[in-house]
Amino acid sequence: GDTRRVGFSQSQATRAKARHAGAVDETAGSLSSCVEGASLVILATPVMAIEGILREIGPVLAEGCIVTDVASTKSSVMGWAAGSLPESVSFVGGHPMAGKEVAGIGAADAGLFSGCTYCICAAPETAPLAVDTVAGLATLLGATPFFLEPAEHDSLVAGISHLPMLLSTALVSATTSSPAWRELSRLASSGYRDTTRLASSDPVMSRDIYLTNQENLGRWLDILIGELEELRRDINDGAEALEAKLRRIKDERDRWQAGTAGSAPAPSAGSLDMGVGHLFFGDLPSHLSRTDRKPR
Amino acid sequence: GDTRRVGFSQSQATRAKARHAGAVDETAGSLSSCVEGASLVILATPVMAIEGILREIGPVLAEGCIVTDVASTKSSVMGWAAGSLPESVSFVGGHPMAGKEVAGIGAADAGLFSGCTYCICAAPETAPLAVDTVAGLATLLGATPFFLEPAEHDSLVAGISHLPMLLSTALVSATTSSPAWRELSRLASSGYRDTTRLASSDPVMSRDIYLTNQENLGRWLDILIGELEELRRDINDGAEALEAKLRRIKDERDRWQAGTAGSAPAPSAGSLDMGVGHLFFGDLPSHLSRTDRKPR
Repeated sequence: GDTRRVGFSQSQATRAKARHAGAVDETAGSLSSCVEGASLVILATPVMAIEGILREIGPVLAEGCIVTDVASTKSSVMGWAAGSLPESVSFVGGHPMAGKEVAGIGAADAGLFSGCTYCICAAPETAPLAVDTVAGLATLLGATPFFLEPAEHDSLVAGISHLPMLLSTALVSATTSSPAWRELSRLASSGYRDTTRLASSDPVMSRDIYLTNQENLGRWLDILIGELEELRRDINDGAEALEAKLRRIKDERDRWQAGTAGSAPAPSAGSLDMGVGHLFFGDLPSHLSRTDRKPR
Repeated sequence: GDTRRVGFSQSQATRAKARHAGAVDETAGSLSSCVEGASLVILATPVMAIEGILREIGPVLAEGCIVTDVASTKSSVMGWAAGSLPESVSFVGGHPMAGKEVAGIGAADAGLFSGCTYCICAAPETAPLAVDTVAGLATLLGATPFFLEPAEHDSLVAGISHLPMLLSTALVSATTSSPAWRELSRLASSGYRDTTRLASSDPVMSRDIYLTNQENLGRWLDILIGELEELRRDINDGAEALEAKLRRIKDERDRWQAGTAGSAPAPSAGSLDMGVGHLFFGDLPSHLSRTDRKPR
């Protein structure tokens, strides 16, 4: 139809690749000319670049424009949006829970978001149409919208996404900085490969995630180190309890892999200990009308 | 030719599956009848089962029989072999650096060892023919024999294999025991899947590995926790140094993935800090004659 997709990247080579791949109809020579007159703007950059981008595009965005992003932390982004965008523009934060350790347009994959959970954060006053649009976009891509508060989002992804990244990186650092790395590298196999895959992520993206989610990540790190120390004690204590514990953990992981995590009786949602209790999140009840589809 | 492959498992179902899959020519009704008269015995069980098996088969093994194993730790195994097997029998420890998180004959894969490093440990007095036989078996499977001392082996695999397992398990424990696991499980994606894959390993196998490699694992755990604490400080300190560090770690990991790890100038092999310096390990110089192919 008359939808026109305009792309912008600071890199001319990336712009050319995007055109040739058919990812966009055309590319713009500047950020502001790219978003001028747009009805939907999607920001896909490392988190901390978003602050400057929002400040730059705020003045040129058309009335009624909807802006969304795909960054991995949401509290900072939502704050920057509230501070930089005019009231005539709607911001809806997005975070598709999918990714690759390889970056750039060469790694683009039209099916990447298929089947994934797509986190959506919006301020209470955000226009329902804007939330619907971003949720609809997620659905079009085959993803499942998951509405939650920015603080809740950041707390959850700190444990399920950013902590695994940090562990991968720590493991690569511990092994590659060993004087025995030359030998270690020959013994490293598929287990090491998978456990360390996330350490190959783009360093600017990772840095921005860590810097905008310090507190939550620190709390999860404490929990993780506590688990390691407990496992160390279990190993020193001996066989029986250790096997039972490893089996319980394996079963939990297998249930998640099979898609049945949380199907066993679970603690009530009100008992969240992440410091942001009493928040609404998750799917909206199906009986709500379309215009009610706001995060709260 | 006249080679006959006889299999034994305590499970009758496994024995039947092995016959039907053609993995063995026949199965035996007992461990001792299985190994009686064998020229080569391959033990593939969790580490700690090997002690009892060696004690049981020792008296019935034929003179000149070669016994090997595929367990993940070698010091205990080599000690049990020295204590239980008669002098007329040769034991050569083996550890193919490949595996899956799924266990059992249903997960068997003829190509599993293709391209992998196959650790081989033998006592100084072991017959060269026995070492050659096990190295030849590894080569037949497409693997590369890698000769090293049991203590060195256990120290290296503690960092490159057992530490990743323990991290995976700690990560699953930290996340699944959270009151927010129901929500976390929906946000968990490919990063979590890969980082936690090893936590789905067989619990008895993992338990035995940890129990027979406690000291080395404890030392690596200290190093890893130190790396985590340093990363936490880097994150709290801010942007510049953190990005550089993450980039350096990513580059190391990418070099390993590309197969060029250790190609950059590395510390001398004599500086190993794993407490077992001055040991010979690695490939044998190619000018050595075949009968010289002993680990030292």
